[in-house]
Amino acid sequence: VLKTLADIGEFGLIRLIHKLIDQEGYKIPGVTLGIGDDCASFKPDKGFEVLVTCDCMVEGRHYLPEHITPFDLGRRAMVMNISDIGAMGGIPLYALVSLGLKKDTPVKYIEEMYRGFMRELNPLGAAVVGGNITGSDYSTFINITLTGKVESARMMRRSGARAGDAILVTGYPGQAAAGLKSLINNRCGSDISKDPLAAAYTLPVHRAREGRAVALSGAATAMIDISDGLMGDLGHICEESRVGAEIVRNKLPISEHMRNLVNPQGWDIFEMIIGDSDDYELIITCAPDNTEKVRAAIGEITDVPVTEIGSITSQDGIKIISPDGVRHPVRPAGWDHFKR
Amino acid sequence: VLKTLADIGEFGLIRLIHKLIDQEGYKIPGVTLGIGDDCASFKPDKGFEVLVTCDCMVEGRHYLPEHITPFDLGRRAMVMNISDIGAMGGIPLYALVSLGLKKDTPVKYIEEMYRGFMRELNPLGAAVVGGNITGSDYSTFINITLTGKVESARMMRRSGARAGDAILVTGYPGQAAAGLKSLINNRCGSDISKDPLAAAYTLPVHRAREGRAVALSGAATAMIDISDGLMGDLGHICEESRVGAEIVRNKLPISEHMRNLVNPQGWDIFEMIIGDSDDYELIITCAPDNTEKVRAAIGEITDVPVTEIGSITSQDGIKIISPDGVRHPVRPAGWDHFKR
Repeated sequence: VLKTLADIGEFGLIRLIHKLIDQEGYKIPGVTLGIGDDCASFKPDKGFEVLVTCDCMVEGRHYLPEHITPFDLGRRAMVMNISDIGAMGGIPLYALVSLGLKKDTPVKYIEEMYRGFMRELNPLGAAVVGGNITGSDYSTFINITLTGKVESARMMRRSGARAGDAILVTGYPGQAAAGLKSLINNRCGSDISKDPLAAAYTLPVHRAREGRAVALSGAATAMIDISDGLMGDLGHICEESRVGAEIVRNKLPISEHMRNLVNPQGWDIFEMIIGDSDDYELIITCAPDNTEKVRAAIGEITDVPVTEIGSITSQDGIKIISPDGVRHPVRPAGWDHFKR
Repeated sequence: VLKTLADIGEFGLIRLIHKLIDQEGYKIPGVTLGIGDDCASFKPDKGFEVLVTCDCMVEGRHYLPEHITPFDLGRRAMVMNISDIGAMGGIPLYALVSLGLKKDTPVKYIEEMYRGFMRELNPLGAAVVGGNITGSDYSTFINITLTGKVESARMMRRSGARAGDAILVTGYPGQAAAGLKSLINNRCGSDISKDPLAAAYTLPVHRAREGRAVALSGAATAMIDISDGLMGDLGHICEESRVGAEIVRNKLPISEHMRNLVNPQGWDIFEMIIGDSDDYELIITCAPDNTEKVRAAIGEITDVPVTEIGSITSQDGIKIISPDGVRHPVRPAGWDHFKR
């Protein structure tokens, strides 16, 4: 019989997690107090600012338990947060994991989730140093707070974009949206977890190393990771920088997988690329002369494609230029948790 | 008609919160990036370590919406976290608030909750610098991550208690348990929110300033705040310090309110004092010679009573010495979210 949280209790679970992290987690030198006290503590590194971000996943809203293993769920939740630190040009360090759990959850499920956290943190030299556990009657939720560090002069804000800047994007935005649609519409129940688009949704890749390289290059003016869709997050840059943007529709990167999408439903691939999609790719703005420098910085880390898709304008709003040269205004909608 | 989150949407809510914090929140100098980017950031203070803690309140589990105003709910959620920083001897600084909200929640409710956060943070020179908002279909939840700072040499751990140390406690543990019972059993529906015991549960007072004073005095060996009950949290000190404890039953502090509790149900007041109770008072251990120094440090801040209730032993386990001199072992149960 599979042991559940009701069998081992809250404190049994905390002990188990503590042991698991001691055994399999990265031993991070700056931590002066880890799990087992009122707070965790760490010595900040000289010359760096402290970054702090949090993100929450709620069962049924941000993930469908039937479509994701607990290991991948842990990875995905951590990737979301690592991505935020990376989008600032920072280095991830210490995570606090706050869980709301149903008492019939198997202990094994939680262990696998923590292994997923560590799978993402260990290669970066980062670690879970604390958290909180509570019961939740209806939906599991996973709130992660991740701290990191970045030098003041290297911090990449959303607010630095200037009119005339080029707009670059890594990878293929929209793949996660296509993957989510495929998963939801997979009514025959076949195993599509290995499908590249489904995987783009279930197990996205963060660009923290690439983001760090861009920050160190000094070539970019603003950066953000895509969690509200390409237009949604470009909209955040425009809002914080008080600028607008023009995107050339024909320049939007479309992956082979997207082109080959078996699409009997007639989904609009263009809508997927510009709409809500949790891709965790980076949008980067830079002076037009610096695009090669940005590309080179990213090229040192991975061979993810970097595509120039348009430019920042002094005029408000985002417009998409269609092949016939007409400028179409778009509403940078982004995922809204209450409007739907 | 009262506007709800469904009316203004996630981004409307974020804008509103941002504005509210700008207008009514403490302007904290160390913050280099607040709400409106992928992360918040701050410059750590030289000579200090960074403390980080998180705590989560789930509707129906940690609070009953019919018994607490949103303003008090915000205060209480923040007090829980401030208390953890204080129990380390630290100074609270930056909060991230992660909310899971039902879409029919009135906007006014959230505003009042943030006013509650600020009511607790502003006097301490601390501030909300970021967070996350998501939808939650069944229960509201409030996860707060609070950072703080403390000098390495002043940090008060759970693990420093030594055999022979005196055990001190501030205030009157058990009042929150009595208040919760009163609220739940108040079937006639009369307004007992002004009842001092109900208030001890609904709106506990943190001892962060007192904890800081104790840390600066250098007189204590271990400290913890009471969120799992007097015995539960004393048990945490014993576990982390690898010691035991003896408590003298007749020395346990009982408030006037507890003595005068109208108690037709025949509740066991002693059980309330040692059992599960969210009092956010401090348990402090120190060398017997230092008790006056600890009292003096706290006395500089408030006139909260400080009671010596027993001593740390080299032998494992916690025992309560009854008036006849018999030692009764107790199980440091503490609140367990899955066992019930």
